[in-house]
Amino acid sequence: MSTPLRITVWGENVHEKKHPAVAKVYPKGMHEAIAEGLRELGGAEVRTATLDQPEHGLTDAVLEATDVLTWWGHAAHGQVEDKIVDRVQKRVLEGMGLIVLHSGHYSKIFKRLLGTTCSLTWREAGEKERLWVCNPGHPIAQGIDRYFEIPHEEMYGEPFAIPTPDEMVFISWFQGGEVFRSGATWKRGNGKIFYFRPGHETYPTYHQKEVRRVIHNAVFWARPEGVRWIDTCPNVPIGKAVEKLTAQGESLHKPGEAGYR
Amino acid sequence: MSTPLRITVWGENVHEKKHPAVAKVYPKGMHEAIAEGLRELGGAEVRTATLDQPEHGLTDAVLEATDVLTWWGHAAHGQVEDKIVDRVQKRVLEGMGLIVLHSGHYSKIFKRLLGTTCSLTWREAGEKERLWVCNPGHPIAQGIDRYFEIPHEEMYGEPFAIPTPDEMVFISWFQGGEVFRSGATWKRGNGKIFYFRPGHETYPTYHQKEVRRVIHNAVFWARPEGVRWIDTCPNVPIGKAVEKLTAQGESLHKPGEAGYR
Amino acid sequence: MSTPLRITVWGENVHEKKHPAVAKVYPKGMHEAIAEGLRELGGAEVRTATLDQPEHGLTDAVLEATDVLTWWGHAAHGQVEDKIVDRVQKRVLEGMGLIVLHSGHYSKIFKRLLGTTCSLTWREAGEKERLWVCNPGHPIAQGIDRYFEIPHEEMYGEPFAIPTPDEMVFISWFQGGEVFRSGATWKRGNGKIFYFRPGHETYPTYHQKEVRRVIHNAVFWARPEGVRWIDTCPNVPIGKAVEKLTAQGESLHKPGEAGYR
Amino acid sequence: MSTPLRITVWGENVHEKKHPAVAKVYPKGMHEAIAEGLRELGGAEVRTATLDQPEHGLTDAVLEATDVLTWWGHAAHGQVEDKIVDRVQKRVLEGMGLIVLHSGHYSKIFKRLLGTTCSLTWREAGEKERLWVCNPGHPIAQGIDRYFEIPHEEMYGEPFAIPTPDEMVFISWFQGGEVFRSGATWKRGNGKIFYFRPGHETYPTYHQKEVRRVIHNAVFWARPEGVRWIDTCPNVPIGKAVEKLTAQGESLHKPGEAGYR
Repeated sequence: MSTPLRITVWGENVHEKKHPAVAKVYPKGMHEAIAEGLRELGGAEVRTATLDQPEHGLTDAVLEATDVLTWWGHAAHGQVEDKIVDRVQKRVLEGMGLIVLHSGHYSKIFKRLLGTTCSLTWREAGEKERLWVCNPGHPIAQGIDRYFEIPHEEMYGEPFAIPTPDEMVFISWFQGGEVFRSGATWKRGNGKIFYFRPGHETYPTYHQKEVRRVIHNAVFWARPEGVRWIDTCPNVPIGKAVEKLTAQGESLHKPGEAGYR
Repeated sequence: MSTPLRITVWGENVHEKKHPAVAKVYPKGMHEAIAEGLRELGGAEVRTATLDQPEHGLTDAVLEATDVLTWWGHAAHGQVEDKIVDRVQKRVLEGMGLIVLHSGHYSKIFKRLLGTTCSLTWREAGEKERLWVCNPGHPIAQGIDRYFEIPHEEMYGEPFAIPTPDEMVFISWFQGGEVFRSGATWKRGNGKIFYFRPGHETYPTYHQKEVRRVIHNAVFWARPEGVRWIDTCPNVPIGKAVEKLTAQGESLHKPGEAGYR
Repeated sequence: MSTPLRITVWGENVHEKKHPAVAKVYPKGMHEAIAEGLRELGGAEVRTATLDQPEHGLTDAVLEATDVLTWWGHAAHGQVEDKIVDRVQKRVLEGMGLIVLHSGHYSKIFKRLLGTTCSLTWREAGEKERLWVCNPGHPIAQGIDRYFEIPHEEMYGEPFAIPTPDEMVFISWFQGGEVFRSGATWKRGNGKIFYFRPGHETYPTYHQKEVRRVIHNAVFWARPEGVRWIDTCPNVPIGKAVEKLTAQGESLHKPGEAGYR
Repeated sequence: MSTPLRITVWGENVHEKKHPAVAKVYPKGMHEAIAEGLRELGGAEVRTATLDQPEHGLTDAVLEATDVLTWWGHAAHGQVEDKIVDRVQKRVLEGMGLIVLHSGHYSKIFKRLLGTTCSLTWREAGEKERLWVCNPGHPIAQGIDRYFEIPHEEMYGEPFAIPTPDEMVFISWFQGGEVFRSGATWKRGNGKIFYFRPGHETYPTYHQKEVRRVIHNAVFWARPEGVRWIDTCPNVPIGKAVEKLTAQGESLHKPGEAGYR
């Protein structure tokens, strides 16, 4: 692609201000570490947006100029306004890619797009996580060997209450004995969605090379294809039917009237 | 199954009171015609519930005692309270079957479970619809020949903005020249979902034998299997890890504390 | 179901005769241990069939009278005759359930139905395997707690080269550090397919209570639904078109002639 | 993409030599008309290969240098050698795109990759076909309006005995009253597969602008992504396990030995 991919990295940016342990690992905020990883691997224009900005930094203009959005949230899912979630959902259905990170499994936007609870089991013990590649030929797994390890992470375990993914890219092995579907894809409307598990706020996960590489791969994988289609539920007037028709029977709607919603 | 299947037929019951043309076709309401079809084919205990009842007739007790819910709505989707939608979604994810009928494609519950706009194109001309069976061996198509026709129906046309169905059971041919994915299935959580297109309020569709047969087949196909599982996102304390663990690194959550939502 | 489910347990029965270590664990053959587990849990009529029988024990009559077939093979995949594989495939597409066990991932019938290589990584070290339930509400997981362990098993690891499963039921954690999609479902034609990983020939896996329970659950899950449909690619003569048609243009086929294959 | 996409157009080239009606429409063969359409839209290097060439024109070297293969066959599916089908399948699983056209639904390679019979109903009456776009935002539908028509085509009707497609791009409406899933996608291994229905040999379908546009879109959609991965079922020796292991229990395989196939 000749023009750079336009990425918006969204971060809740709450823990970083409240918890010294998090601020120490991510002094500029987690979103800046994620953005830095994307910038260093190149090919994209990367901006950030956070919860405390007007409209959470996700104005119509910003989303309009975003090819792929990454999402990290945890403590403040409930503070994300529904109208912003509506707006993000609309853009995903139109074709904007969405990369949901770690505790974003419980974000409004992820649950909205998948329709399930997206729950899981968890443990915060700083244990070792090993992510196995389920398909070494997949674009999201490029540059990763057969697996990679994160020395200290929060554990997320099955059951992960999601609809069947289109593709499985990573499955995690945890030192404490659990497994988890750590990298999975879906398509909703024309938007490609990738969920990527790692990224607990107290560990330097988003500084790790392999994690940055996967997120970089993922945003390129999730770039929009085709054209933007706005699905508006149009009425096709009888006189414009492809095959000639004569109206029959009773009718509720007057000619040209919009349908109910 | 030795015990009868417990069905709740939900009807908006708005058009039937406002429009004489609808009242003439469905004097007791559309929900009663749907329920009658299910009763005459047997094997199920069928009750009805409507929008104007307290909690829209869908109390916790009713949903608890419902194996499969059928849903018809059109003019008043917006009047269905979000807390009732939450409740229905929860029961579907636990395993209750859901049969979404016709204009229910725009109901809150259908959009909530699928995550897309569920839009389509449409025309109210009383034209002929022919529904083709995509898999004659499918339980939902039993008793239907290779196709069946509805003499007068509203047209719904592609594009139908849904996630890829798990299975395609019917595709419609319309006299005016369009096609539509008229019978499609999904699973969300442990709930089986079937969308069935026919059923415009001004035509006697729910009195037609083949339509009744399909809905009857569908409720039996959608019956709960397995056990009810409530996914609660439990914490697994470090001391209860399957493999012996020692906590490492920083921690945000105190032992036993619930996670964020 | 009032009539018992008719199960055929197919076993290669080669290792059991060649290797004393296997004969010791499975003195009557692995197929008999699998059949015994199904019989003790009840509700099914269980027969066995083996490679060395005429037509590998899978005559037309046997398959005709089989609702669900289980398949274990390893050393002699190549000796299974293609015409028998054709026959089994035909019955699966008609609706017969198929449970593929362990090294059956490389059987002709599994690769034939899935279309991919079905390869994986492996290690024979007698290590511990822990199978996690991905959906505790799934019929195949009933009676299993959140996980179960097999003390000594062969390791199978990702990447497992399969098409995306319809549903994930189990994922394994291995002591040596790998993970694997150990319980997965597909539908091909009207046949339900379940792959279940455990069952290396040198360990007493098919004597273990949880393994027997899962296989028993699986055969009931995979039972045929609907009716048997034989898809024959029929010609629809012009005179029998639903909408009136007149032939136009050139034609290769004479009226009533069968198509090419 | 800076380097042109490398396309191989495979044609059976049998009807063209036997039937004057076909030769008249496709004097250079159908494969040349398909190739011409791809060439005129640009961006690709297009070669052709036919059944009567050595190795059907699909040598290792040709496939190695092919990013996307298109396949049209009808009368001579049975003459395609199994070893060539093996070779094509291997390349698809490695990531080569495959576009299967019209009567190719019964080709060995399509049935091999999908695992089902791929049967349908059919009629040769030169009737009108109208292909509706199921997702106007899809890359394969670019440049097509909401539908396009082919004045004279063979009818293919449901049931089409395929596994559920990943995405539905086109559904056809036929003048004689049938419908058909005319444009559908699957992924097998790392290869993207698109089935596109139109193209009966007695009609000038492959000279039609919209048909050429769809095939051109499809080859670009199906281009390989990621890297080529050869899945070889490797053994992981005990000494190379990620977590330290000691062998336990009996073993069939000696250290370093290959597994059975």
